[in-house]
Amino acid sequence: MQKFEEKDVVRNIVENILSDYKNGRDIDKLTVFHQPDKEAIIDIVTKLMRIFFPGYYRDKVYRFYSVRNNVSVLIEDVMYNMQKQIAIVLHNKCEFNCCDEDDIQKTAQELTFEFFQKIPKIREYLNTDLQATFDGDPAANGKDEIVLCYPGFYATTIYRIAHEVFVLKVPLIPRIMTEYAHSKTGIDIHPGATIGKYFFIDHGTGIVVGSTTTIGNHVKVYQGVTLGALSTREGQKLHGKKRHPTIEDDVTIYSGASILGGATVIGSNSVIGSNAFITKAVEKNSRVSIQNQKLYCRPGEKSHAELKDLNLNDGWY
Amino acid sequence: MQKFEEKDVVRNIVENILSDYKNGRDIDKLTVFHQPDKEAIIDIVTKLMRIFFPGYYRDKVYRFYSVRNNVSVLIEDVMYNMQKQIAIVLHNKCEFNCCDEDDIQKTAQELTFEFFQKIPKIREYLNTDLQATFDGDPAANGKDEIVLCYPGFYATTIYRIAHEVFVLKVPLIPRIMTEYAHSKTGIDIHPGATIGKYFFIDHGTGIVVGSTTTIGNHVKVYQGVTLGALSTREGQKLHGKKRHPTIEDDVTIYSGASILGGATVIGSNSVIGSNAFITKAVEKNSRVSIQNQKLYCRPGEKSHAELKDLNLNDGWY
Amino acid sequence: MQKFEEKDVVRNIVENILSDYKNGRDIDKLTVFHQPDKEAIIDIVTKLMRIFFPGYYRDKVYRFYSVRNNVSVLIEDVMYNMQKQIAIVLHNKCEFNCCDEDDIQKTAQELTFEFFQKIPKIREYLNTDLQATFDGDPAANGKDEIVLCYPGFYATTIYRIAHEVFVLKVPLIPRIMTEYAHSKTGIDIHPGATIGKYFFIDHGTGIVVGSTTTIGNHVKVYQGVTLGALSTREGQKLHGKKRHPTIEDDVTIYSGASILGGATVIGSNSVIGSNAFITKAVEKNSRVSIQNQKLYCRPGEKSHAELKDLNLNDGWY
Amino acid sequence: MQKFEEKDVVRNIVENILSDYKNGRDIDKLTVFHQPDKEAIIDIVTKLMRIFFPGYYRDKVYRFYSVRNNVSVLIEDVMYNMQKQIAIVLHNKCEFNCCDEDDIQKTAQELTFEFFQKIPKIREYLNTDLQATFDGDPAANGKDEIVLCYPGFYATTIYRIAHEVFVLKVPLIPRIMTEYAHSKTGIDIHPGATIGKYFFIDHGTGIVVGSTTTIGNHVKVYQGVTLGALSTREGQKLHGKKRHPTIEDDVTIYSGASILGGATVIGSNSVIGSNAFITKAVEKNSRVSIQNQKLYCRPGEKSHAELKDLNLNDGWY
Amino acid sequence: MQKFEEKDVVRNIVENILSDYKNGRDIDKLTVFHQPDKEAIIDIVTKLMRIFFPGYYRDKVYRFYSVRNNVSVLIEDVMYNMQKQIAIVLHNKCEFNCCDEDDIQKTAQELTFEFFQKIPKIREYLNTDLQATFDGDPAANGKDEIVLCYPGFYATTIYRIAHEVFVLKVPLIPRIMTEYAHSKTGIDIHPGATIGKYFFIDHGTGIVVGSTTTIGNHVKVYQGVTLGALSTREGQKLHGKKRHPTIEDDVTIYSGASILGGATVIGSNSVIGSNAFITKAVEKNSRVSIQNQKLYCRPGEKSHAELKDLNLNDGWY
Amino acid sequence: MQKFEEKDVVRNIVENILSDYKNGRDIDKLTVFHQPDKEAIIDIVTKLMRIFFPGYYRDKVYRFYSVRNNVSVLIEDVMYNMQKQIAIVLHNKCEFNCCDEDDIQKTAQELTFEFFQKIPKIREYLNTDLQATFDGDPAANGKDEIVLCYPGFYATTIYRIAHEVFVLKVPLIPRIMTEYAHSKTGIDIHPGATIGKYFFIDHGTGIVVGSTTTIGNHVKVYQGVTLGALSTREGQKLHGKKRHPTIEDDVTIYSGASILGGATVIGSNSVIGSNAFITKAVEKNSRVSIQNQKLYCRPGEKSHAELKDLNLNDGWY
Repeated sequence: MQKFEEKDVVRNIVENILSDYKNGRDIDKLTVFHQPDKEAIIDIVTKLMRIFFPGYYRDKVYRFYSVRNNVSVLIEDVMYNMQKQIAIVLHNKCEFNCCDEDDIQKTAQELTFEFFQKIPKIREYLNTDLQATFDGDPAANGKDEIVLCYPGFYATTIYRIAHEVFVLKVPLIPRIMTEYAHSKTGIDIHPGATIGKYFFIDHGTGIVVGSTTTIGNHVKVYQGVTLGALSTREGQKLHGKKRHPTIEDDVTIYSGASILGGATVIGSNSVIGSNAFITKAVEKNSRVSIQNQKLYCRPGEKSHAELKDLNLNDGWY
Repeated sequence: MQKFEEKDVVRNIVENILSDYKNGRDIDKLTVFHQPDKEAIIDIVTKLMRIFFPGYYRDKVYRFYSVRNNVSVLIEDVMYNMQKQIAIVLHNKCEFNCCDEDDIQKTAQELTFEFFQKIPKIREYLNTDLQATFDGDPAANGKDEIVLCYPGFYATTIYRIAHEVFVLKVPLIPRIMTEYAHSKTGIDIHPGATIGKYFFIDHGTGIVVGSTTTIGNHVKVYQGVTLGALSTREGQKLHGKKRHPTIEDDVTIYSGASILGGATVIGSNSVIGSNAFITKAVEKNSRVSIQNQKLYCRPGEKSHAELKDLNLNDGWY
Repeated sequence: MQKFEEKDVVRNIVENILSDYKNGRDIDKLTVFHQPDKEAIIDIVTKLMRIFFPGYYRDKVYRFYSVRNNVSVLIEDVMYNMQKQIAIVLHNKCEFNCCDEDDIQKTAQELTFEFFQKIPKIREYLNTDLQATFDGDPAANGKDEIVLCYPGFYATTIYRIAHEVFVLKVPLIPRIMTEYAHSKTGIDIHPGATIGKYFFIDHGTGIVVGSTTTIGNHVKVYQGVTLGALSTREGQKLHGKKRHPTIEDDVTIYSGASILGGATVIGSNSVIGSNAFITKAVEKNSRVSIQNQKLYCRPGEKSHAELKDLNLNDGWY
Repeated sequence: MQKFEEKDVVRNIVENILSDYKNGRDIDKLTVFHQPDKEAIIDIVTKLMRIFFPGYYRDKVYRFYSVRNNVSVLIEDVMYNMQKQIAIVLHNKCEFNCCDEDDIQKTAQELTFEFFQKIPKIREYLNTDLQATFDGDPAANGKDEIVLCYPGFYATTIYRIAHEVFVLKVPLIPRIMTEYAHSKTGIDIHPGATIGKYFFIDHGTGIVVGSTTTIGNHVKVYQGVTLGALSTREGQKLHGKKRHPTIEDDVTIYSGASILGGATVIGSNSVIGSNAFITKAVEKNSRVSIQNQKLYCRPGEKSHAELKDLNLNDGWY
Repeated sequence: MQKFEEKDVVRNIVENILSDYKNGRDIDKLTVFHQPDKEAIIDIVTKLMRIFFPGYYRDKVYRFYSVRNNVSVLIEDVMYNMQKQIAIVLHNKCEFNCCDEDDIQKTAQELTFEFFQKIPKIREYLNTDLQATFDGDPAANGKDEIVLCYPGFYATTIYRIAHEVFVLKVPLIPRIMTEYAHSKTGIDIHPGATIGKYFFIDHGTGIVVGSTTTIGNHVKVYQGVTLGALSTREGQKLHGKKRHPTIEDDVTIYSGASILGGATVIGSNSVIGSNAFITKAVEKNSRVSIQNQKLYCRPGEKSHAELKDLNLNDGWY
Repeated sequence: MQKFEEKDVVRNIVENILSDYKNGRDIDKLTVFHQPDKEAIIDIVTKLMRIFFPGYYRDKVYRFYSVRNNVSVLIEDVMYNMQKQIAIVLHNKCEFNCCDEDDIQKTAQELTFEFFQKIPKIREYLNTDLQATFDGDPAANGKDEIVLCYPGFYATTIYRIAHEVFVLKVPLIPRIMTEYAHSKTGIDIHPGATIGKYFFIDHGTGIVVGSTTTIGNHVKVYQGVTLGALSTREGQKLHGKKRHPTIEDDVTIYSGASILGGATVIGSNSVIGSNAFITKAVEKNSRVSIQNQKLYCRPGEKSHAELKDLNLNDGWY
């Protein structure tokens, strides 16, 4: 089909790309088999969803009469694969570099067991999130709908899983988990964040929750909210420092609001209005909103003055 | 491979999780086989795309000479599965609880048939959306490109499908459909919303259209726009009430604008500028924009005064 | 199982849909096999990721000892399929309408070869993006984490691939590629945009980069940023004109900022604050931010005056 | 791609085939969904192999620490599917024609449970077959090899499964099972046959064991052996009658031998030589072989006389 | 993982094998893409089974209400792929070597159409085979069982398909089809053989029907029967000559019989006994059997004389 | 769906089967992960076919321009998996029981390398088999047909592969390979047999070649031939002894012949007629056939005398 010259072109292209790998740059990493397997981790997360909500997902591979068997199988399967992936990332963690394979496997197994022992606790939290979502969204027709299709609840579930893995100091894997949720929902919660019970995210797309954020109980967050760092100009120097805000109990943060900085605390029982941009602490019981967003109208409207009334003050929510 | 103690740990973990299911919380739902199958519904949606745009999708399993056969197959297949999924959700709907299986199957079939009879009407609407998208986006090289890769057109298509299922009062399934589109595009249109012809979404990520929103013909919406509720503090008490705005014909809403509240009507032929936050009705033919976003400059810039000219007024669009 | 009348209903539905296809509208396109195969293009992109980062992805189908073989296989496979898809889209491009199949195949092969010869250059750029991401994000634990799970780096990689295909004037395919990245990350970079080295996107969801945007080296962009057109009211008349801004070297654009218009140039070394809305050129070394976002507090707060201090000026970042 | 006339040809062909279905012949059966699913039954058989020999097969889908979970899952899965397939075939069985669906499901479940309760008994038999195979074949390096790759043991296992289903009077399914084994091994044992413990088949290809055959304990059978009917000229009139031989305990039947007829009993402890053709009863302790197979030699050999010595008598085995 | 020397070993091995390909032997054929695709042909055969017996097979991919659609889809699909495979083998056929691609495609399409037009005729024949099998086998519980699991009927069906393709002078493909059936059933019928109506094969394993065999109507054949050539010592010189026997109407051939030679005609209404070895013509109405197979008994039996009665004469069938 | 009592039944069944595993019989083997993976070995064999005949098989996963890359990939892949499977079986071999994992891996790799170094030799042999098959079968239209669909050539290829693995003293795997071929072709060649060049099997079904058989060059074997042991009554005591015949060069063995015993040598250039049963050595240049198979005819035939002429003598071949 192809003539001789074409083969030469192909060969040259291959050679050029192969020699390009030899530049020794970070991008030129070539050791295979020592990276965690992203797809395996996504599979773990997907199966954990079925362990967490056994009545909501079906097994496509086997048919079961009893939940017991269904869940036992899933648990062992996830354990096996989680241990395998954790062992891989432990290799990449400097402190284990000189360890032998057996120690790493043992540590990986212990970490896996620790994670699984936390599952009832995680489910306890998720049950409160489910209640908060149902109470908070008048559009919800039932809790089934929330478990089956609310992206906010989905992202929260994966965050809660990833966070427990993060707490065990397992590198890389927690982030792969939350970035998977980010990809599916547009909600980017860093696994390092701490989030209390009864957490409710509505709509969700565009939410960012930074790695050192602390969130209390009964907090509601709407689409486009950023809980971020004030500045990241110093880059890696900031690694490990508290750079993201603290949100106390019973706070509601409406869409598009930005709350930035490690020293920024939103006092309990406060409400932050849409698009508010906050870089300093807010006292308890505050209702913060943008004052007087001046809206301007051109030909066709009654008058400018009247339009100014389109501000937040009246429609306070 | 594993020693005896490990087996004990595994067994304990399994038992703990199993006993955790017995708390009787909402999260502990255990009846299998009575939830709709999310993957089956996504498959239905994917195949409906091929029925709606028969020239744009290929069959990976069979090879066809004629569109007739291709489409007949798809229609029967989708009918079969849609009826099956509808029957499942009808079981969960209270008014059918005492019905026998045959009645449910019959109702599910009738609903499926009703949906399919609406397909020509839905396609009529989609053709206007396609035209509006082509007219509205100078970057579009052709209508093929829009059908094949525009997320706004994709989300609109799935919304229009889901809306017709919603109108038939089928629970759960419409929301699973639109949340699938939400997950793929970042565009969250509730299936309960009413949207006229020639609807155009550009870029799309972060758009929210609430369940009681009404949108007229020839409306354009950009990324990050929220057509939402004023407040949801009352939660489930608001269920079923008109909480989201009405957008009349020929309105354009630029990126980041928020229009909130069930009584908020944007009069026909109006333009809402970027980031405007509106909670009251706007008259016909209005051009609303944020007046004087003051921009501040630090060392390196000429002067503050000049920079103030960077406001919206000049660049009105 | 089904009775006779049901079959009639099914037959009527099928006939109605089939006759609906005969309206001759744009939506009624019926020629099969002449559209590019979206799934094939996504497969190409996925395999290119493995060619670009050979150490980070695993082959699920074969097991290899040497990277050479792994990569050779991938390269030939992607070449074969890319040539096939390019040939399909060239058919749809008017200037080729009268060409014979052989010419199209030859052109498709040449374009494929040209693309592959650019891979070392693209990797050179990606290595700088990787460095910029590591330097810019204090939360990054290592470059592995970035390659494996950062959506910004993922979207940038696919943009860089798509852009090179775009430069070769291949229709449709580049856009399908970037819309795939858009769907996975919420980051919408048009393949026509020009982006320099050391590009860093953080979080990413909601970013829009228009088709005639030009971006220099060392630029940082945060979530929700729009680099867009001032107005698209003229629609298709604007096709091909410079409608999107120019961002010079060393510019940082914080979350939610909008920079609009083809004449809008952000001078080098500038910083654009969160939510700034800019439609005119900004000089070099500027630090633009919204002045005095007035925040209003209701019962529970100390006083209005104090709260005004919650402005951007102090917390400048 | 194809021209108009081609479409006509295609349409004509389709119409001709469809109208050919309307001849009302046996081959024209058109009711879908009422036949058992061959692939499902093969899947059942394959999974039963893993239940019978839990240490020899691996689960490709899940990973397990404990055999308990592995087996529990398989058992429930096979139960579910076996009940489903049995229910389908019960529909086709005349005596159930007027039963309602619930009765059929109940019967199918009871039959499934009965089958599963026999599994320990079947395994008891298989353990003796394994022993007999090991003792009988000097080429066997271990019992692992037998379980993993001996076609005779494989066919015996499937026969034993199918026989128990046959005994429960489930139509069709047992035969589909043994024909699957026949297809894989060339060994055709009718599920109706009765076979004792310590059954050993060597090589196997070409073995036929008819439906009313009775075989005792410790019987060895080699390739190409037929245990058949004397004549089948009367066809369906013979349905249900004993037409195949009885083989008593401790009999060995060498390759190519044929033993025919319902009244033909091979007495215990007998040996039937290769290619013997037997249609009458043989007493206990007999050693039957073909007497004097005259072999003829042409130029090149020593003499005819000597060659006659190549008979069975000397080499009796 | 692997050390440097290992890589060298691998490289040497690869190089040795590659250079071994350069010997120019028949085995060293290297042109890819010009051989028919065995798996594609097996797929064609499998789908043809569903076209021939539409009530017996299920579609795993789509769900259908009507047989019409099911069959239309299959027909178009098989046509498409059969044309593709025929085109490939026509390339390899010398007389087409100088043809251009369009001619080959056209010929391939015509041949495909011709084949499909014969389907009703083939089904007519298969219906007679089904009847003959039911009448001939007392173990058959119904015709369903025959269609679903009788290897003889399966092999006959594939032979009938392959034969019609053979008659169209399509190379290679018919043989791939019958060898597939051979592999599944142990029945080796050459596609060149001619077989009349009401053909019945019982058990089947080991049957060989040579390429120039002619078989009349109402013929029954049992396991292990060879209809072969007398000698093939002359090899390729015999190519195309009648080398296999002719079996007239209403003949029954019992297990293990061999009928050899192109001049050997078995006259109508004859019966050939088990293991008979025939190389000359047999008149009509003959009942041929081996006379007096002398059976010899060793200690334990009554006497030799009695045992001689174990001959065919009594048990003639 | 299921009631409480059903669950109890299920639980009892599971418990009974689980406790049945505890009998400690050979069938009760429970250690998972220490058996070779049959499917993996079949995959190895299938891929080796593509390495041996690179021009005849297509890669379904990747598309290649060059054979070099195709083959390199396959070789590495097969090496990887073969080493893995060999390591598993070495564990089970007593002499390695006390070895540590590293030694086993090293040995497994060396054995794998040794096998691959023999590939050119194996191909040399296969090329002669291909020639012999073409020369021997007048029905062959070309060598393509032989490689693509002749079961005899297929079984020979797999035997030659398995034999080389057998020679390396790798347990279990060679037998799994040849039993796979047995299952596909009905040809059962033990991997321990020694077979010279230019080996030709016609039709093949039912052929048995025992483990200590030795076959010279230019040997032809037809369907149903057994090269077996005289008696296996002594079972495992015979393990390792020469029990199967020796066939010298240029011998042809027609269908159904049995040659038994370790001392039985068929001298070179001999021909063994159909159904001959031989247990003693045959000199060079012999043509052995059954003398005077007496055929008996009943009413309808001319006379018995004439029919006797239907013996082998005339039709000698």
